[in-house]
Amino acid sequence: MSERRQPVLGVLGGGQLARMLALAGAPLGVNTLVVDSAADACAGQVAPLVVADWTDYAALEAFAGRVDVVTFDFENVPAETARWLAERVKVSPAPLALAVAQDRLAEKTLFRECGLPTPDFMTVDTREQLDQALAVVGVPAILKTRRLGYDGKGQFRLRDRADADAAWAALGAQASRHGLILEAFVPFERELSVIAVRGRDGDFRTWPLTRNWHVDGVLSMSLAPAPDIEQLQQRATALARTLAERLDYVGVFALELFVKDGELLGNEMAPRVHNSGHWTIEGAHASQFENHVRAVLGLPLGDTGARGPSAMFNWIGELPDASAVLRVVDAHWHDYGKQARPGRKVGHATVCATGAGQLAARLGQVAAALGREAQVAPVLSALG
Amino acid sequence: MSERRQPVLGVLGGGQLARMLALAGAPLGVNTLVVDSAADACAGQVAPLVVADWTDYAALEAFAGRVDVVTFDFENVPAETARWLAERVKVSPAPLALAVAQDRLAEKTLFRECGLPTPDFMTVDTREQLDQALAVVGVPAILKTRRLGYDGKGQFRLRDRADADAAWAALGAQASRHGLILEAFVPFERELSVIAVRGRDGDFRTWPLTRNWHVDGVLSMSLAPAPDIEQLQQRATALARTLAERLDYVGVFALELFVKDGELLGNEMAPRVHNSGHWTIEGAHASQFENHVRAVLGLPLGDTGARGPSAMFNWIGELPDASAVLRVVDAHWHDYGKQARPGRKVGHATVCATGAGQLAARLGQVAAALGREAQVAPVLSALG
Ligand SMILES: Nc1ncnc2c1ncn2[C@@H]1O[C@H](COP(=O)(O)OP(=O)(O)OP(=O)(O)O)[C@@H](O)[C@H]1O
Ligand SMILES: Nc1ncnc2c1ncn2[C@@H]1O[C@H](COP(=O)(O)OP(=O)(O)OP(=O)(O)O)[C@@H](O)[C@H]1O
Ligand SMILES: [Mg+2]
Ligand SMILES: [Mg+2]
Repeated sequence: MSERRQPVLGVLGGGQLARMLALAGAPLGVNTLVVDSAADACAGQVAPLVVADWTDYAALEAFAGRVDVVTFDFENVPAETARWLAERVKVSPAPLALAVAQDRLAEKTLFRECGLPTPDFMTVDTREQLDQALAVVGVPAILKTRRLGYDGKGQFRLRDRADADAAWAALGAQASRHGLILEAFVPFERELSVIAVRGRDGDFRTWPLTRNWHVDGVLSMSLAPAPDIEQLQQRATALARTLAERLDYVGVFALELFVKDGELLGNEMAPRVHNSGHWTIEGAHASQFENHVRAVLGLPLGDTGARGPSAMFNWIGELPDASAVLRVVDAHWHDYGKQARPGRKVGHATVCATGAGQLAARLGQVAAALGREAQVAPVLSALG
Repeated sequence: MSERRQPVLGVLGGGQLARMLALAGAPLGVNTLVVDSAADACAGQVAPLVVADWTDYAALEAFAGRVDVVTFDFENVPAETARWLAERVKVSPAPLALAVAQDRLAEKTLFRECGLPTPDFMTVDTREQLDQALAVVGVPAILKTRRLGYDGKGQFRLRDRADADAAWAALGAQASRHGLILEAFVPFERELSVIAVRGRDGDFRTWPLTRNWHVDGVLSMSLAPAPDIEQLQQRATALARTLAERLDYVGVFALELFVKDGELLGNEMAPRVHNSGHWTIEGAHASQFENHVRAVLGLPLGDTGARGPSAMFNWIGELPDASAVLRVVDAHWHDYGKQARPGRKVGHATVCATGAGQLAARLGQVAAALGREAQVAPVLSALG
């Protein structure tokens, strides 16, 4: 029998997403090689790590020679780096899709072209334009950097026009480098996301819609399948498919949505596996991580159906007591192997069940053991 | 916040069991360090690997200093090595349990003491004793090495007494070093295994009984929960608990059983995670790998309940086409990252479902796509 060579997945960025991609790739016989500028990047605990920054072309050249396909843990890899790599090795999603998702203007423009309305917005490059934008968009509003924002960073909320100075003080310095965008603040009824995957052959699938709750702009809880969504699943899937086809997208992406007056509005897309899809590890037949690996390597996609209802707690800043969660039936612990730091995503837990009542009971057990009643409250009320 | 140190699990042996232990440990924030004499041991693809043999005490000393607890991928680690390590670091299961499970005589003696009958047997150290044993045990019989057998290796089947010379030619050379044992061949109705776990605090759990089919002494298929077992689950659980308590066992072990005239007979125990428990990765709330990591690190045990019926195909020698399996709903692929080699366990696939009929249909899809109808046939007939 001839010597076999296992496929190698290259991942730009070595955080928890790369870590979970590597863990999902291993059973498929896929080895992972990670690039990160930090020697202690947490994916390095489960896969070999190349320590290099995004402009270290000598290191990137060697990296490209060792992998079969390159993908992203981190969407803010410079588009230039992605393009340079794409001349040497397969890069999925392609640099174009990455570039669109990196820019809130390009992203919202695409959404509208695809028939997905967005909150009102205007780009802002100067202090004067901020006033003009406020006049058009109205208040409340959110000023965001066009590029490089994540986890609610690079955002300033304006309750009235008098907040313009404070907003400019916070973000004005970034206007010339990254551009800014002023968005109408949407008093949404719900936040949803659709996690979607498209294979190299065009096969397209979505997981059931996920309902999400953010605290201070950072994901706090997810519940899937999102209850009481009626025809929104069909519409979200159709929109995600249109977007994916427009971008000739390969891999997993997330489309973040607001529901306002029962209608979908597009917030943003993430050109990668997404925090609101972590429940799929235990809650779906094939996880977003496994399907991303399958997609970028050209393997058949796995079934995106849910096994039952599940909910995810995000652990921000530091991990709570693991034992309290480990004791709950069908509760699953995910420690990313990171050091604690305020605001940092350091882990999550997913609780699965066979029905809504059982899920609520288990979530209640976790919350009570950890003193997390406030975190879980909106999920319990959504479960009815 | 103070610098955290993640627990490190040391594993002796770097095969697929170590690999799946490492993959199960990662979400728990547990890092794994593997020792194997082969630099290409497949667990080394997902965890750091120390290349050393079982008598390289300098390497073992350094290894012991880097881990919180030592466990086994491989039960034939010399008992002497295990004892030496146990003077330096926690070793679970303890060297005593390992020693019992390494010796078919000690094992069967313990089974009988615990109230579990075994096939008739006699130890054999010389050619003359083989004749005496055949006179007592009768034929058909199996001559086995007392130590170091696995996957049906070190066994010779005797149909009649005239096979004694051939049996001795095959195994006689090992009589003085490892000892031999002659066992009555049991015309069993079924083979079952119970996978059990015992925590550091004595908490004890079993997964539902698994039904197994071997081909040429090597596991071919498993089905769990084993259908139509009635009161055997209770009895198997009680026996496993007695064994575990007698050995003050910590971690996962497997008890291999024959069913003859509806009664259980003990075949052997494996002091580690076991091939017949691989279905627990997707088929149970907590897998054998996760619970082994939890147990040896003193964490609470996870729920051993099955999510539904599932069946496992073992891939021996070389992997079949992955794509055919990846296309089936709730079918899960496990490539161990090994080179193909006749008789070698190189991977497995687990197929899950919500009911027996659905499982049978999915197994049929896999078998048809791979031309594995013969492998799956006994499982389909057990599913009715
Ligand atoms: N226009 C808006 N109206 C109402 N709420 C908003 C608006 N924009 C953002 N938010 C809230 O802030 C959260 C984070 O905003 P956004 O998704 O733009 O940020 P991000 O930094 O890209 O975050 P992440 O990477 O976590 O998705 C949203 O999920 C939503 O809860
Ligand atoms: N006494 C017996 N009567 C009938 N069949 C037997 C007997 N001993 C072994 N076998 C058959 O051979 C298989 C392998 O035997 P055994 O478990 O002793 O071997 P092993 O080398 O330790 O294998 P493994 O490591 O795969 O469990 C058994 O599972 C059973 O199918
Ligand atoms: Mg967002
Ligand atoms: Mg056996």
